[in-house]
Amino acid sequence: MSKIQVAVLGATGMIGQRFIQMLEDHPYFEIEGLYASERSHGKRLGDVLKVRDHVYKDDIMDRRIETMDLEKISKNCRVAFSGIPSELAGPTETELAGKGVAVFTNAGSHRMDRHVPIIIPEINWSQFDSVKDQDTYSSGGYIVTNANCSSTGIAIPLKALYDAYGLKQVFVSTYQALSGAGYPGVPSLDAVGNVVPFISHEEEKMESELAKMLGTYENGDFKYADFKVMANCARVPVVDGHLESLVLELGADPSLEEFEKTLADFRAEPQKFKLPSAPEQPIIVRHEENRPQPVFDAMAGTPERARGMATTVGRIRKSNGYYKVFALSHNTLRGGAGGSVLNAELAKAKGLL
Amino acid sequence: MSKIQVAVLGATGMIGQRFIQMLEDHPYFEIEGLYASERSHGKRLGDVLKVRDHVYKDDIMDRRIETMDLEKISKNCRVAFSGIPSELAGPTETELAGKGVAVFTNAGSHRMDRHVPIIIPEINWSQFDSVKDQDTYSSGGYIVTNANCSSTGIAIPLKALYDAYGLKQVFVSTYQALSGAGYPGVPSLDAVGNVVPFISHEEEKMESELAKMLGTYENGDFKYADFKVMANCARVPVVDGHLESLVLELGADPSLEEFEKTLADFRAEPQKFKLPSAPEQPIIVRHEENRPQPVFDAMAGTPERARGMATTVGRIRKSNGYYKVFALSHNTLRGGAGGSVLNAELAKAKGLL
Amino acid sequence: MSKIQVAVLGATGMIGQRFIQMLEDHPYFEIEGLYASERSHGKRLGDVLKVRDHVYKDDIMDRRIETMDLEKISKNCRVAFSGIPSELAGPTETELAGKGVAVFTNAGSHRMDRHVPIIIPEINWSQFDSVKDQDTYSSGGYIVTNANCSSTGIAIPLKALYDAYGLKQVFVSTYQALSGAGYPGVPSLDAVGNVVPFISHEEEKMESELAKMLGTYENGDFKYADFKVMANCARVPVVDGHLESLVLELGADPSLEEFEKTLADFRAEPQKFKLPSAPEQPIIVRHEENRPQPVFDAMAGTPERARGMATTVGRIRKSNGYYKVFALSHNTLRGGAGGSVLNAELAKAKGLL
Amino acid sequence: MSKIQVAVLGATGMIGQRFIQMLEDHPYFEIEGLYASERSHGKRLGDVLKVRDHVYKDDIMDRRIETMDLEKISKNCRVAFSGIPSELAGPTETELAGKGVAVFTNAGSHRMDRHVPIIIPEINWSQFDSVKDQDTYSSGGYIVTNANCSSTGIAIPLKALYDAYGLKQVFVSTYQALSGAGYPGVPSLDAVGNVVPFISHEEEKMESELAKMLGTYENGDFKYADFKVMANCARVPVVDGHLESLVLELGADPSLEEFEKTLADFRAEPQKFKLPSAPEQPIIVRHEENRPQPVFDAMAGTPERARGMATTVGRIRKSNGYYKVFALSHNTLRGGAGGSVLNAELAKAKGLL
Repeated sequence: MSKIQVAVLGATGMIGQRFIQMLEDHPYFEIEGLYASERSHGKRLGDVLKVRDHVYKDDIMDRRIETMDLEKISKNCRVAFSGIPSELAGPTETELAGKGVAVFTNAGSHRMDRHVPIIIPEINWSQFDSVKDQDTYSSGGYIVTNANCSSTGIAIPLKALYDAYGLKQVFVSTYQALSGAGYPGVPSLDAVGNVVPFISHEEEKMESELAKMLGTYENGDFKYADFKVMANCARVPVVDGHLESLVLELGADPSLEEFEKTLADFRAEPQKFKLPSAPEQPIIVRHEENRPQPVFDAMAGTPERARGMATTVGRIRKSNGYYKVFALSHNTLRGGAGGSVLNAELAKAKGLL
Repeated sequence: MSKIQVAVLGATGMIGQRFIQMLEDHPYFEIEGLYASERSHGKRLGDVLKVRDHVYKDDIMDRRIETMDLEKISKNCRVAFSGIPSELAGPTETELAGKGVAVFTNAGSHRMDRHVPIIIPEINWSQFDSVKDQDTYSSGGYIVTNANCSSTGIAIPLKALYDAYGLKQVFVSTYQALSGAGYPGVPSLDAVGNVVPFISHEEEKMESELAKMLGTYENGDFKYADFKVMANCARVPVVDGHLESLVLELGADPSLEEFEKTLADFRAEPQKFKLPSAPEQPIIVRHEENRPQPVFDAMAGTPERARGMATTVGRIRKSNGYYKVFALSHNTLRGGAGGSVLNAELAKAKGLL
Repeated sequence: MSKIQVAVLGATGMIGQRFIQMLEDHPYFEIEGLYASERSHGKRLGDVLKVRDHVYKDDIMDRRIETMDLEKISKNCRVAFSGIPSELAGPTETELAGKGVAVFTNAGSHRMDRHVPIIIPEINWSQFDSVKDQDTYSSGGYIVTNANCSSTGIAIPLKALYDAYGLKQVFVSTYQALSGAGYPGVPSLDAVGNVVPFISHEEEKMESELAKMLGTYENGDFKYADFKVMANCARVPVVDGHLESLVLELGADPSLEEFEKTLADFRAEPQKFKLPSAPEQPIIVRHEENRPQPVFDAMAGTPERARGMATTVGRIRKSNGYYKVFALSHNTLRGGAGGSVLNAELAKAKGLL
Repeated sequence: MSKIQVAVLGATGMIGQRFIQMLEDHPYFEIEGLYASERSHGKRLGDVLKVRDHVYKDDIMDRRIETMDLEKISKNCRVAFSGIPSELAGPTETELAGKGVAVFTNAGSHRMDRHVPIIIPEINWSQFDSVKDQDTYSSGGYIVTNANCSSTGIAIPLKALYDAYGLKQVFVSTYQALSGAGYPGVPSLDAVGNVVPFISHEEEKMESELAKMLGTYENGDFKYADFKVMANCARVPVVDGHLESLVLELGADPSLEEFEKTLADFRAEPQKFKLPSAPEQPIIVRHEENRPQPVFDAMAGTPERARGMATTVGRIRKSNGYYKVFALSHNTLRGGAGGSVLNAELAKAKGLL
């Protein structure tokens, strides 16, 4: 069977290059072209390299960047993976969907649109059907978004706990990596030896997206889950991997052993359907006294294709009736390009590609 | 009037050298000697320099480190400022107090002792009298501790809010500087590009010390304040300045303007008595969208002698009925050596020196 | 006597703010206005703060940035200190000089112009007279540049050695600070945990500027000194302070003691005339085995006003007939704004202001 | 054919864990045991993890560390790979060789011993025979060292140029990674935002080891090559990968194209014999204007098993008759554990295992 042809939009950026990484030798998808703004037209991928820790194959490094020609993309590609900046993403993605392309995007532009789902397949597999209510669906075009990178980092553990015990309140503080701001992103003079306690709109996103994702889609509308999130977001001088501290008020009173087992045993549809990029164990629980750490745990996840797709939880404690943990996930893999590739795999599993 | 002779214990370390900085040209105190372990005996201070941002005077840089001779210290000094490691501090400080020396210490060894106060003069000036119940007091000797550096960072704003509105719950996550672990402290391979979500005993200290300090000393015992603290502590690659995110449940519902005014207008005894190292405005409120930051705000405080002694609060927000802020204070000045120097100034003001 | 009114151009940038720092309470100069591009018009200096380690006075922090109105500047100011980017600096500075303003600039645009000197007062005080040959001189306007920040770092020690022993070859490798690239400058994703072995045109500048500065100005032309420079330049994740390794071939064979004494004893006109920002000892020699280091030595220099204006040399060694040292100087003080302020002080001493 | 049993000494350290990485699924060798000091006895490898970027297999992570029992090691193992500290390495390795074990070590203790070679197989394959002159050889025991990590980084390019053009002088400045100092190694307070221009004995090693390696072994003695090395060594806040600037005086005057071709085309015995850990292309030349960089180039090398084993050279320039380049190699793979594993593969190829 021939593979589905896909376009990578924003190939000169951090997220675009993570898309390329996740799509190497993919069983379903084949990269038709690398697209970016006119400025980079004709450059080799190797000339605009951003990702530090991945070794791309030589033939990928030598591929040339093309200017975004939506006509060409829609003619040649069934799918577009979008890593372009939000201000550009809005109209571009709408137009592509209108031309019959299934768009899987990391941009936030359409996340709160009426029939556009924010999908993390482990959490809200069923919300995916909302795409059928999008105007462009009859032509085969639709838009699916992955969640904000800091929401993603904790969404799966929260889902596991929500299902098992109910969830009332989430107090979260983030230690977010520099790659979350893209490239050039944060100036080094702000980053070296410093913490910046502000990321534009991030707290608002965390306080709304999580409840949307853990809710349901019924009769054409999203119904939000009813727990509260209080978020404080900060940028730290780390390259990849968002660490987050959590204090949780649950609806029940599990022992720490039960609490841990609920996380470690959590499995969902992506695991059952064995989606190629789904981690076998979505939540990895660590017992060392000082984990998770970005440099050790950002790439967690097995098998090989799912590296960077697992969430790591550690330091499970209890204090005054609240549960405390630290959680970590890779912000540009699980929280970015990897999330959208997994969403496209889900679309395939559902027969929508 | 001749100045009070003081010994600096642990002069080769980060805290010891901050003591020396705070004591330069001090109106009350004069450094009699610099003391440390035998290993450093005879070295110039300049040869074991740890503090990055302070320019010590040449004659200080040339002073020689002496081995800790408690007999000599107690003979020559009325006061000892102690920046020695906790495991050593316990017995050494007890012995010095027994010999009639007033010990002002950054070590945690005696913080939970029955009649030993943890003093931040802006908060619990009156608890200082507990020293009169210490066994050694009759000889003039006693021990006063400054608070843990991460507790200190938020204690003054919490006190201001506690007095004005009552305080029920404090959810705090820390972004703690490397200097808090002393020297050599955190290995660079753990620090560069990383966050370590664990600091030994730090969360326990924050969850107990704050309530002790905001409580009272009555009839020979400390009575704790009755709010709850839920703490998550992490180390970030910052040199100086502990940043902390706070979510607060108050006993009242002030507007954000009232809330801010309560913080900015807070003054206490150190300001009234114009203690030399007391900041004129203990809590500085900033309105920029991305402050406080360690590199800009760690040294906050006026006048010159009180640099690094003010706490900076920013990003005052409200969410779901909770108040959210970021706070920052200098961990080795206000949260270390500066705290103990201010405590000694208070002792002087109270006639106990 | 009333002070000379000066304009600071580029006040939102790193160099502009170092100008402001160097001009606080200056005995000769008074800041008339802070100027920058239209984008920042009306902002407080405090809102665009870039410099980490300096505590500006409150009234300075509250001053408003104005758009660069050359007419107004030339009417009100005798002097302009320019910290604007090179592409803008060229025509702006020419126009200001044409309007009778003495321009002291950090930009490289005019450095190789025929009658424009690159001045480090300790080195080429006499070359300053070249300004009299500039077309605009009759109107009182002229342009004086400070050297490139990496050249400056080693120029004074090289001058001392050149005069004493002759100099044949200089092999230099730089470890340059991030602030040298301005703000936003180097993206954090390039800086954290990394070294970038390329700084545009920096090696060429080092290989030409040093010979121009150590040469002479005769009969209307600069005559270059005849030693060779082989430079390798790299950017390291340091905030302030360019460290440079040197291997030198001299024209004589001094002992290491003589070599050191030549450096430590070096004094020149700025010291004789006691220019306000001139360091009493231009070259500080350190004997510790691991100095100079950016975090300890960037701010070297006495008195207070000359902090960051001395060059520190350490690790003086000899190998195979070559002399080896490490040198360090502050790239935005001595190698930037401080250099130009010192040049303006020299102009005053020479009666050209 | 059954694999050769090997012991890993120093398995809790950075180099020891790189040995384990290089030995996973090795075609010749099988890890018999992981050894370290008594303090770590019984711990899982996962509990003492140091290496950031490698994903060890689960069964390796669960292996227990054993105390170094030289009797047991010599009974069970033909080979010991040693990553223990130099002060301990000297006697331990001598004793093991005496018991018939072939020791491949990263420690410097024996590097200058009379019949002990410092081997980089691409350079001095033939010097390996010196082991036959070691006293313990008859029992099968001998010691082979890999070079110092900063010498290794440039040794292969220097060899290629030496053979092609002759080599007279090497001016080298290093930008060395933190992992080169082991763990805990450099304190973070010295590393963050700083450069330390001193590494104990490093310059002396570079100035002597390179000439030993590029020389010959004749009649029982090493004869040194006769070029001069002038080295300046500094530590930068980079995790892995030593970058080095070079200015070279050659014995001929090749064009930059010839110079580059000489490097890129260099092949030696490890490539001809296809040793498993040998990179297909030992020297990779890059043409981007800002490479090599530690974060992109430290892991250079193909095939998979040889990642981190190639040296990357970039920015080839000429200035005043000298050739200038930047070179980079992985200090704990090619310059540490990988170097010794390659040496053991060479021993196998020569029939000495």
